[in-house]
Amino acid sequence: MNLLRGIKRCGKMTYIISRQRSTVAASARPLTDNGKFDRPSIVTNEIPGPKTRALLERAAVVHNTGAINFFCDYEKSKGNYLVDADGNVLLDCYQQISSMPLGYNYPGFLDIYKDESSLVSVVNRAALGNFPPVNFTKDLETLLTVAPKGLTNVVTLACGSCSNENAYKALFMWYQRRQRGEEPLGSDQNIESCMMNKPPGSPNLSILSFSGAFHGRTLGCLSTTHSKWIHKIDIPAFDWPIADFPQLKYPLEEFKRENDAEEARCLAQVEELIERWRTKSPVAGLIIEPIQAEGGDRHASDDYFRKLRNIATKYDIGFICDEVQTGMAISGRFWAHDYWNLDKSPDIVTFAKKMITGGFFFSDEIKWKEGYRIFNTWMSDPSKFPILEHTLDVVKSEDLAARAAGVGEHLLSGLKDFERRYDFLSAARGRGTFCAIDAVDTNTRDSVVKTALSNGLLIGGCGEKTIRFRPSLIFSIQEADMALGILDDVMQKIAP
Amino acid sequence: MNLLRGIKRCGKMTYIISRQRSTVAASARPLTDNGKFDRPSIVTNEIPGPKTRALLERAAVVHNTGAINFFCDYEKSKGNYLVDADGNVLLDCYQQISSMPLGYNYPGFLDIYKDESSLVSVVNRAALGNFPPVNFTKDLETLLTVAPKGLTNVVTLACGSCSNENAYKALFMWYQRRQRGEEPLGSDQNIESCMMNKPPGSPNLSILSFSGAFHGRTLGCLSTTHSKWIHKIDIPAFDWPIADFPQLKYPLEEFKRENDAEEARCLAQVEELIERWRTKSPVAGLIIEPIQAEGGDRHASDDYFRKLRNIATKYDIGFICDEVQTGMAISGRFWAHDYWNLDKSPDIVTFAKKMITGGFFFSDEIKWKEGYRIFNTWMSDPSKFPILEHTLDVVKSEDLAARAAGVGEHLLSGLKDFERRYDFLSAARGRGTFCAIDAVDTNTRDSVVKTALSNGLLIGGCGEKTIRFRPSLIFSIQEADMALGILDDVMQKIAP
Repeated sequence: MNLLRGIKRCGKMTYIISRQRSTVAASARPLTDNGKFDRPSIVTNEIPGPKTRALLERAAVVHNTGAINFFCDYEKSKGNYLVDADGNVLLDCYQQISSMPLGYNYPGFLDIYKDESSLVSVVNRAALGNFPPVNFTKDLETLLTVAPKGLTNVVTLACGSCSNENAYKALFMWYQRRQRGEEPLGSDQNIESCMMNKPPGSPNLSILSFSGAFHGRTLGCLSTTHSKWIHKIDIPAFDWPIADFPQLKYPLEEFKRENDAEEARCLAQVEELIERWRTKSPVAGLIIEPIQAEGGDRHASDDYFRKLRNIATKYDIGFICDEVQTGMAISGRFWAHDYWNLDKSPDIVTFAKKMITGGFFFSDEIKWKEGYRIFNTWMSDPSKFPILEHTLDVVKSEDLAARAAGVGEHLLSGLKDFERRYDFLSAARGRGTFCAIDAVDTNTRDSVVKTALSNGLLIGGCGEKTIRFRPSLIFSIQEADMALGILDDVMQKIAP
Repeated sequence: MNLLRGIKRCGKMTYIISRQRSTVAASARPLTDNGKFDRPSIVTNEIPGPKTRALLERAAVVHNTGAINFFCDYEKSKGNYLVDADGNVLLDCYQQISSMPLGYNYPGFLDIYKDESSLVSVVNRAALGNFPPVNFTKDLETLLTVAPKGLTNVVTLACGSCSNENAYKALFMWYQRRQRGEEPLGSDQNIESCMMNKPPGSPNLSILSFSGAFHGRTLGCLSTTHSKWIHKIDIPAFDWPIADFPQLKYPLEEFKRENDAEEARCLAQVEELIERWRTKSPVAGLIIEPIQAEGGDRHASDDYFRKLRNIATKYDIGFICDEVQTGMAISGRFWAHDYWNLDKSPDIVTFAKKMITGGFFFSDEIKWKEGYRIFNTWMSDPSKFPILEHTLDVVKSEDLAARAAGVGEHLLSGLKDFERRYDFLSAARGRGTFCAIDAVDTNTRDSVVKTALSNGLLIGGCGEKTIRFRPSLIFSIQEADMALGILDDVMQKIAP
């Protein structure tokens, strides 16, 4: 502690020291291929620069541009470096909202599509559910190689929202199948009523979700999303139960007693809600993120999740684990819920983003018999499967989950150091490189993110006042040091 | 009529005669590049053949395969010919559920991605809403070149369901903005209530839809879909108003009086529902397909749609035209609603399928100011834009809408001929090549579709007993004749 205080003002030195201390489980060999880039480079007075501003002005004539940060030159981008329209080179710790597993233009990836059999999938988009390409069976089997323990089935879908929407449908179907027992699926009464959106065919069932959760923005998903009001306002929602997600104090180990009590309170509330909703709109299942991402990188203990799983089992309702943002190795395990060591796996695990395709894994119990119940025209996009296959090869052969664990430990120790050194920062936390730290308020957080950008570092915000890191899986110790160094300069500028 | 009766038993001769009579607006020059294929070829005893069956058996271990027809070899497929895993060559009048505008491996399309700037978009999927590629502004402008009259804005999305879900949201936002007047968007009461899925922040508003409609299968869309019970059963739905879609008699011109009365009845019901729902869950807008596709290719008169538009205007609610299946020239106009000659355009027109990307066009009135309200990680897929751009070039330069009108007229005259010649067929109808004919019942329809397939012709079913044609935009008169010839053989086999 004294040592850290002693070097409080030495800036970047900190990270050289902490790097030596860090236990890096991943291979020391740098995997990153950043091409010609070895650091950020800012060539405009501000970001967005003039070229982005000109493109924005044109786009704004026909399109809402309110969420556009800047335009990008993806041809010039490489590895962990994103190049913007104006030629600014940014160290990218956000990676397209955590959706690029191996950074930009990963070596050999352009060549995948120089093979005509892959390129054909780009120009002939199959209606996968009806007319899959001959490779599709193999692609499903490839997906199954990373199936969460206990889940032996998979369906592919186009995006995260579609994955969650259809996961809800699969749970509702499973729930009703057991209610129905031996009765036929298509009784006259069920058929007639469902066509009019009425029970019993369209039953009053619900999905229980959690305060601060984000599961997407289509109307079903949005009814389980509670992270930001701007996502929800003016949009009708299903009246489904919402339980408190534990609001823990960090560092978790220092506040164990309070946190245990908070988790116990929240778990009791889940049971209470399941009971209370029984007569109104029975809970068919619940959905939870292993780490609430959009809601502000909120963690809970592994024990909390195990107990939550047990509650689902006790009440015989489904348990969906939404790994859209946490999945694919970034947490230090392939699936973040691998940390929980569950006795009984989730019933459904949904994925998208870094998995290149959307979809969900599911247990044999959830399996439905009839075709066309979980279906749409495209059902994902076969042109994504060659990238997915190559990405999974790299993730496995280079053990990128272990790499994320090691690099993440290093990154987190840097953030914990910030927390000690800057009064306006707190709650450094993370698993793998899925790391975050809180600023004192929204304005300060926004100011950190903006100033970092103008210094060449792209990071994200989430929740009310959280700064989040979502680097690629090829993010290195050296780049973590560089990011921390830039951030340290930013913090010094911003410190009151 | 006598002539037609006379040649009733002459099979394929019919089409040579009718072809000579047909007014073909499109260029006579054949556009189709079918490579080496000039007719279907069936090499297995049945479809699915042994290779598809082996792939199905493997896939069924990990995946619901209930809707898979057969596996396809997209490398070998060309133009209007789809080659299956077993080497069967099919004349494809269904085109991936109407989602392939120019058939398979259109000349030059593989070359698009030999240009590295296009290929880069395949391996680096941008989060379009935050970090669009430098080309995105141009891509939006390209989309605007085919914007429906009166609509000057566009947003891209990944698929048809997402497009409709977000169109509903845009309408709800527009509706509430006007209710709110000068009040702030984010009042404490609105913020607090919307985070709990309750009014006033999550208001009780509805979208009015029609019996037989299909707008997608996510929970918002599914609440407006009423085509098949298997899509809806067991899934909770919003209790939103559902109006009768006119059940017309064909040929429309022969039953004008009855049909006018039916349309008037249905229009009156729409007004009655808007009034009735006002206190319970006000109607923010309605959504309608220009031709109900999944619901069984159900048409209504242009006059009906004009009056429906006027009702929306009268009650100051939104009018969404769902052109996911009818859009992109297949109807003989670029947008099927172009036939209506509306005084006031729809407020929103949604698209996907043959448009390569999902999304919707919208009027200035619908425009929202805030970012992140219509948003998700991917917001479409930039790798689709090069194909879209080239496809639009071909559609415009070859006037494929006029071609679809001409080929469609020819196809329809063949179907009308069937209707006269086969007692078990009725109601031949269509616009452009978006054609259909009814069988006497579901079993007969299924039998026609199945027998056609085993004779090398791929067509679709929809509704209860409808046979639908959804050929590509490069479908030719000669291919229409070939399809009709095969079907004629099928009908003769099936005729009782």
